[in-house]
Amino acid sequence: MKAAKDKIRVVLVGGSGYAGYEALRWLARHPSAEVVGVFGPENELGPMDRFYPLLSGQCVLSQERFSEQAVAALKADLAMLCVPHKVAMSYVPTLRKLGLRVIDWSADYRLTDAAEYEKWYCPHTDPAGLAEAVYGLPEYFAKQIAKADLVANPGCYPTCAVLPLAPLIQAGLILPDEIVVNAISGVTGAGRAPSPKQHFPERNENFEPYGVGNHRHMPEMEQVLTTITGKETTLLFQPHLCPMDRGMLCTIFARPTSDDVTQLHLLNVLQAAYSNMPFVRVRNDVLPATKYVANTNYCDVAVRLAKGRVVLFSALDNLLKGASTQAIQNMNLMFNLPETTGLY
Amino acid sequence: MKAAKDKIRVVLVGGSGYAGYEALRWLARHPSAEVVGVFGPENELGPMDRFYPLLSGQCVLSQERFSEQAVAALKADLAMLCVPHKVAMSYVPTLRKLGLRVIDWSADYRLTDAAEYEKWYCPHTDPAGLAEAVYGLPEYFAKQIAKADLVANPGCYPTCAVLPLAPLIQAGLILPDEIVVNAISGVTGAGRAPSPKQHFPERNENFEPYGVGNHRHMPEMEQVLTTITGKETTLLFQPHLCPMDRGMLCTIFARPTSDDVTQLHLLNVLQAAYSNMPFVRVRNDVLPATKYVANTNYCDVAVRLAKGRVVLFSALDNLLKGASTQAIQNMNLMFNLPETTGLY
Amino acid sequence: MKAAKDKIRVVLVGGSGYAGYEALRWLARHPSAEVVGVFGPENELGPMDRFYPLLSGQCVLSQERFSEQAVAALKADLAMLCVPHKVAMSYVPTLRKLGLRVIDWSADYRLTDAAEYEKWYCPHTDPAGLAEAVYGLPEYFAKQIAKADLVANPGCYPTCAVLPLAPLIQAGLILPDEIVVNAISGVTGAGRAPSPKQHFPERNENFEPYGVGNHRHMPEMEQVLTTITGKETTLLFQPHLCPMDRGMLCTIFARPTSDDVTQLHLLNVLQAAYSNMPFVRVRNDVLPATKYVANTNYCDVAVRLAKGRVVLFSALDNLLKGASTQAIQNMNLMFNLPETTGLY
Amino acid sequence: MKAAKDKIRVVLVGGSGYAGYEALRWLARHPSAEVVGVFGPENELGPMDRFYPLLSGQCVLSQERFSEQAVAALKADLAMLCVPHKVAMSYVPTLRKLGLRVIDWSADYRLTDAAEYEKWYCPHTDPAGLAEAVYGLPEYFAKQIAKADLVANPGCYPTCAVLPLAPLIQAGLILPDEIVVNAISGVTGAGRAPSPKQHFPERNENFEPYGVGNHRHMPEMEQVLTTITGKETTLLFQPHLCPMDRGMLCTIFARPTSDDVTQLHLLNVLQAAYSNMPFVRVRNDVLPATKYVANTNYCDVAVRLAKGRVVLFSALDNLLKGASTQAIQNMNLMFNLPETTGLY
Repeated sequence: MKAAKDKIRVVLVGGSGYAGYEALRWLARHPSAEVVGVFGPENELGPMDRFYPLLSGQCVLSQERFSEQAVAALKADLAMLCVPHKVAMSYVPTLRKLGLRVIDWSADYRLTDAAEYEKWYCPHTDPAGLAEAVYGLPEYFAKQIAKADLVANPGCYPTCAVLPLAPLIQAGLILPDEIVVNAISGVTGAGRAPSPKQHFPERNENFEPYGVGNHRHMPEMEQVLTTITGKETTLLFQPHLCPMDRGMLCTIFARPTSDDVTQLHLLNVLQAAYSNMPFVRVRNDVLPATKYVANTNYCDVAVRLAKGRVVLFSALDNLLKGASTQAIQNMNLMFNLPETTGLY
Repeated sequence: MKAAKDKIRVVLVGGSGYAGYEALRWLARHPSAEVVGVFGPENELGPMDRFYPLLSGQCVLSQERFSEQAVAALKADLAMLCVPHKVAMSYVPTLRKLGLRVIDWSADYRLTDAAEYEKWYCPHTDPAGLAEAVYGLPEYFAKQIAKADLVANPGCYPTCAVLPLAPLIQAGLILPDEIVVNAISGVTGAGRAPSPKQHFPERNENFEPYGVGNHRHMPEMEQVLTTITGKETTLLFQPHLCPMDRGMLCTIFARPTSDDVTQLHLLNVLQAAYSNMPFVRVRNDVLPATKYVANTNYCDVAVRLAKGRVVLFSALDNLLKGASTQAIQNMNLMFNLPETTGLY
Repeated sequence: MKAAKDKIRVVLVGGSGYAGYEALRWLARHPSAEVVGVFGPENELGPMDRFYPLLSGQCVLSQERFSEQAVAALKADLAMLCVPHKVAMSYVPTLRKLGLRVIDWSADYRLTDAAEYEKWYCPHTDPAGLAEAVYGLPEYFAKQIAKADLVANPGCYPTCAVLPLAPLIQAGLILPDEIVVNAISGVTGAGRAPSPKQHFPERNENFEPYGVGNHRHMPEMEQVLTTITGKETTLLFQPHLCPMDRGMLCTIFARPTSDDVTQLHLLNVLQAAYSNMPFVRVRNDVLPATKYVANTNYCDVAVRLAKGRVVLFSALDNLLKGASTQAIQNMNLMFNLPETTGLY
Repeated sequence: MKAAKDKIRVVLVGGSGYAGYEALRWLARHPSAEVVGVFGPENELGPMDRFYPLLSGQCVLSQERFSEQAVAALKADLAMLCVPHKVAMSYVPTLRKLGLRVIDWSADYRLTDAAEYEKWYCPHTDPAGLAEAVYGLPEYFAKQIAKADLVANPGCYPTCAVLPLAPLIQAGLILPDEIVVNAISGVTGAGRAPSPKQHFPERNENFEPYGVGNHRHMPEMEQVLTTITGKETTLLFQPHLCPMDRGMLCTIFARPTSDDVTQLHLLNVLQAAYSNMPFVRVRNDVLPATKYVANTNYCDVAVRLAKGRVVLFSALDNLLKGASTQAIQNMNLMFNLPETTGLY
C-alpha cells in the first residue's frame, strides 16, 4: 500500500447529498486516495456522521463552510463537486485557481454549447471552463480524461442510455433519429431533500412518469451520442420514478438500419465494444435488472430484436455508475491508476 | 335492497388466486349479486379464509371440488372462471350446458382466431365457444356484452393499452403500425404461486424486464385494436415487473399521422371518447400514476406530444380494472344493472 | 335505501390529511351518511381531488376556509374533526354551539383529566367539553357513545393495545402493572407532511424505534384500561416505524396472575369478550399480521402463553380501525344505525 | 499486499444461499484470503454467477459436488460451512480430518450440551466436535477463537441480543431472569428458497410475528449469556418478519436490579464494554435503526431507562454481522490478522 502522504488528496464539495455520501464511503476504502476535507452549504455544516449515522466511527470528517483559504490549506490534488448545477460553476474557477483538478458532478460542464446550456438551465458564468471541460464517460473519453483538469461527470440517465446505444449507432446498425429511451430510476435519484412526491406513503407502491419531453438529460444524451458516433442523434427520453431506493433501468426502442440486421450482429457489436471495458457487462444470460448491479460500478446491457425493432436494456446503480463510483473511475484515470482501483 | 333470492347467483371457479379473491371481496359488497359457490383445484380445497385470513368472519364459503352435479345444485346464473388458460376451456362447455352464462378471465376466448390462439397457447378445444365469445371490454363492446352468454374478460395489459390507443387510432391521429407499448406491472400480476423470481428478497428493490417480443398479451392488443378501429394495428409490447403489490402503468410511444396533430387535438379526442364512460378518466391535471387508481376500477389516461411523438400514459389496478372489477362491470352489463353498480 | 335528504349530514374539518381522506372515501360509500362540507387550513384549500388525484370524478367537494357561518349554512348533523390536537379544541365549542354533534380524532378530549392533558400536551382550553366527552371505543363504550354529543375518537395505538388487554385484566388473568406494549406502525401514521425521517430513501428498508418512554399514547392506554377494568393499569409502550404504508401490530408481554392460568383460559376469555363484537376477531388459526386487516375495520387479536408470560398480538389498519372507520363506527352508534353500516 | 500464495485458502460449503453469497463477495475483496472452491448440494451445482447474476465477470467459481478428494485437492486452510443444521455436522468431521479449520454457520455446534441440541434440533452425530467447538462471538471469545479448529458462528438474533445484554447482566445492573427480547428481521433471514409466506405480494406491506416461545435462537441466547456473565439467564424471545430485504433490530425490555440504576450508569457500562471493540457502536446520538448498519459489520446498541424498565435497542445486518462478515471477523482472529481486515 502507498504511504498515506502519497495518496490523492481529495476535497468533497457537497458531502451531505446522497452522491457525496457514496463518494465518501467508497473513497474511505480506496487504496490510493483519501478525502481530506468536506465543504457544504451554510445550513448543512457539521460532522458527517450526523447527516449519516451509518458513518459513525468510520468517518471523522465534518462538513465545513467553503472558503478559498480553507480549501487552500488542505493542499489537495482533486476537488469533487457534488452540488447542484449553477452552484457548481460558482466554485469551479476558484478551485482551479488554487491548482486543484476538478470533477464536477452537476450539469454545469456537460453541455459543450453555452447557448444550449442556457436554454435548459441558466446563463453560464464560466465559459472558459466550459470550453476546456472533458465529458467524463470513461468508456469513451479515457484519454482526454487522463489529461483533463476539469471533468464533467455524466448524468445517471445519460450514462445508462449512451452505453448501449453508442456502439450500435457507431456501427451503423440503428437509425440515430428513431430512438426512444424509456427509463426508470430509484428514489435516491430525486435527492435527499424531503418533498411531497417522495414522502414514503406517496411514493411507496407508486410508479409514476415525469418530465415528458423536457428532462434535461435528453439534450445531454443527444450531444454525447452525436459526439461519440459522429452521427447527429436525436431521441425522445421518458423517465419514471420507481418505488425503490436505488437502481436505474433503460428500455430503449430503436430501428435497425436494414432488414439484414440480426440479433447476433447487434450482440457481437456490443460485445466487441466492451470486451476490454471492465465495468460494462454485455449480458446474454439474463436481461439486465436493477438488483444485478446494485451497489456496484457495473452497467449491464443487453439487446434483442423483436418485431422489427431493436430493443436495448441497460441497468446501473444511479448513485454509483450513475454518479459516485463513475467519478472515482474518472479520478483513477486522471491520476494514472488502474481504472478499477477501489471499484467493483 | 333486493331480496337475496333476486340477486344474481354467481359461481366462482378458481377462488384461491388473487383475481378470484378480489372478485369474492367485491361481490360480497355488491348489492345485486352474491357468490353461491366456489370451486377449485384438488390441491386447493377448503375454507376461503384459510387461503386468505383477511376473509375470516366475512366469508363462509369453501372452495369445493368441481363437478357438474355440484354446480347444477346451486342454480346459479353466472360462472366466473378465474383459472389459467387451457383449464378454462375445459370447464366452459360444461358450465354453458348447465345453463350458466360465463365470464372467463383466462386467455381462452380472447383471440378470435383458433389458429392464432394455437400459435400463442395450445390447440383450442372449444371452437364453438370461441366463435360465440364476446370480448369483455365494456367501453367498446357494451351492447354485445349485454347479450352475451360467454364473455372473455380482457387481459390486464390489453385493457391498459387499448383504452388510450383506440380513440386516437380510430380518429386517424396516430399511425396504427408505429406503436410501442412499454408497461410495468405490480407483482400480483405474476400470480399467487411462489417462485424464485417473485421471492421477496429477489423482487424487492428489483425492477426487471421480461417477455421481450413474445408476451401473449401482444397479439391480444393488436387484435382488439384492429377490431375496434377497423385499422390493422401492429405494435411492440414490452412488459416489466416493478417491486410493488399492485398497479399497472403503460407508457406508449406513437407517431402522429401528420405534423398538424396538436396535443389539444389528441386530448379532445380522448375526452370525447370517454366523456360518458364512468371508469376511464382522461387526466389533464396530473400524469397517471399507479397510486391514483389503486383499489379502484378506474383507468386513468393522459396524452402528451413531445419531440414529434405522441406519448400516452395509462394506469389501472391490475387486479381490478385489469381483472376482477372489470368482470363485475361486465356482469352488470350482462344482467341489465347500471354499469357502476357495486363499483368505484 | 334512505332518501338522500334523510342521510346524516357530515362536515369534515381537516380533509387533506390521510385520516380525513379515508373518512371521505368510506363515507362516499356509506348508505346513510353524506359529507356535505370539508374545511381546512388556509394553506390547504381547494378541490379534494387536487390533494388526492385518486378522488377525481368521485368527489366534487372542495376544502373551504372554516367559518361559523359557512358551517352553519350546511345544516349538518355531525362534525368529524381530523385536525391536530390543540387545533381541535379551538373548533369544538363553536361546532357544538351550532348544534352539531362532534367526533374529534385528535387527543384533545381523550384524557379525562385536564392536568394530565396539560402534562402531555398543553393547557386545555375547553374544560367543559372535556368533562362531557365520551371515549369512542365502541367495544367498551357503545351505550355512552350512542347518547354523546362529543366523542373522542381513540388513538390508533391505544385501540390496538386496549382491545387485547382489557378482557384479560378485567378477568384478573394478567397483572395490570407488569405490561409492556411493543408496537409498530406503517408510515401513514406519521402523517402527510414530508419530513427527513419519512423521505422514501430514508424510510424504505429502515425499521426504527422512537418515542422511548414518552409517547403520548401511553397515558391514554393506561387511563382507558384503568377505566374499563377498574384496575389501576400501568404499562410501558414502545413504538417503532416500519417501512410500509399502513398497518399496526402490537406485541404485548404480560404476567399471568397465577401459575394456573392456561392458554386455553386466556383464549376463552378473549373469545367470550368479543363473540358479539363484529370488528374484533380473536384468531386461533393464524397469528395477527398487518396484511390480514389492511383496508378493513377489523382488529385481530391472539394470545399465547410462553415461558411463563402471556404474549398478546393485535393488528389493525392504523388509518381505519385506528382512525377513520372507527369514527364511522362511532357515528353509526350515535345515529342509531347498525354498528356495521357501511363498514367491513 | 501479500502474494496470492500466502493468502488464507478458503473453501465454501453452501455458496448458493444468501449468507454464502455474501461471504463470497466480501472475501473477494479481502486482502489476505481467497475462496478456492465452492461446494453445494446436487441440485444447485454450476457457476456462481448463474445463481447470482450480479457476480458475472467478478467470480469465476462454480459450485461443485462435495467430495473428500475434491476438497483435499484444494489444499485449503479453512472451510466455511453455510449449510443448514444437521447437514453441517455431516461434513465437519470429514473437513477436520483433512486438516482444515472450520467455521460452521449452522446451529450444529452452538449449543454446548448435546441433549439440549437434541431437544431443539435432532440427535447430534458429532459429539466430539461439539465438545471442542468455540462459540464465535468475537467480542467475548476472541482468545478461544484464535486457537480454535472449529468455530460455531453465532445466530443472527443471538448476536443482536447478546451484545447489548451481556455487559449489563455482567455488571449486575439488570436481572438475568426478567428479560424479553422482541426482534424483527428482514426477509433474507428466511433464506433463499421461495415459500408462500415470503412470496412478494404476501410479504410486502406485511409485518408478522412468528415462532412464539419456540424459536431455536432462544436457548442459544440463554446459554451464551449465562456463559459470558456467569449468571443463569432466562429470557423470552419473540421474532417478527418485516417487509424489507435485510436488517435486524432487537428491542429488549429488562428490569434494573435496583432503583438506583440510572441511564447514565447503564450507558457507561456499555461504553466501557465496547470501547475497544471495533464493530460494536454504543450510540447516544440516535437510536439504532436498520439502515444505519445495513451492508456493514457493525452492531449498534443503545440504552434507555423508562418507567422503571431498562430498554435496550440493537441493530445489525442479519446477513453480515449476523452471519457472513462475523465469520470473516472470526477468520481474521483464527489466522492472526487484525480483526478489522477486509471489514467495515
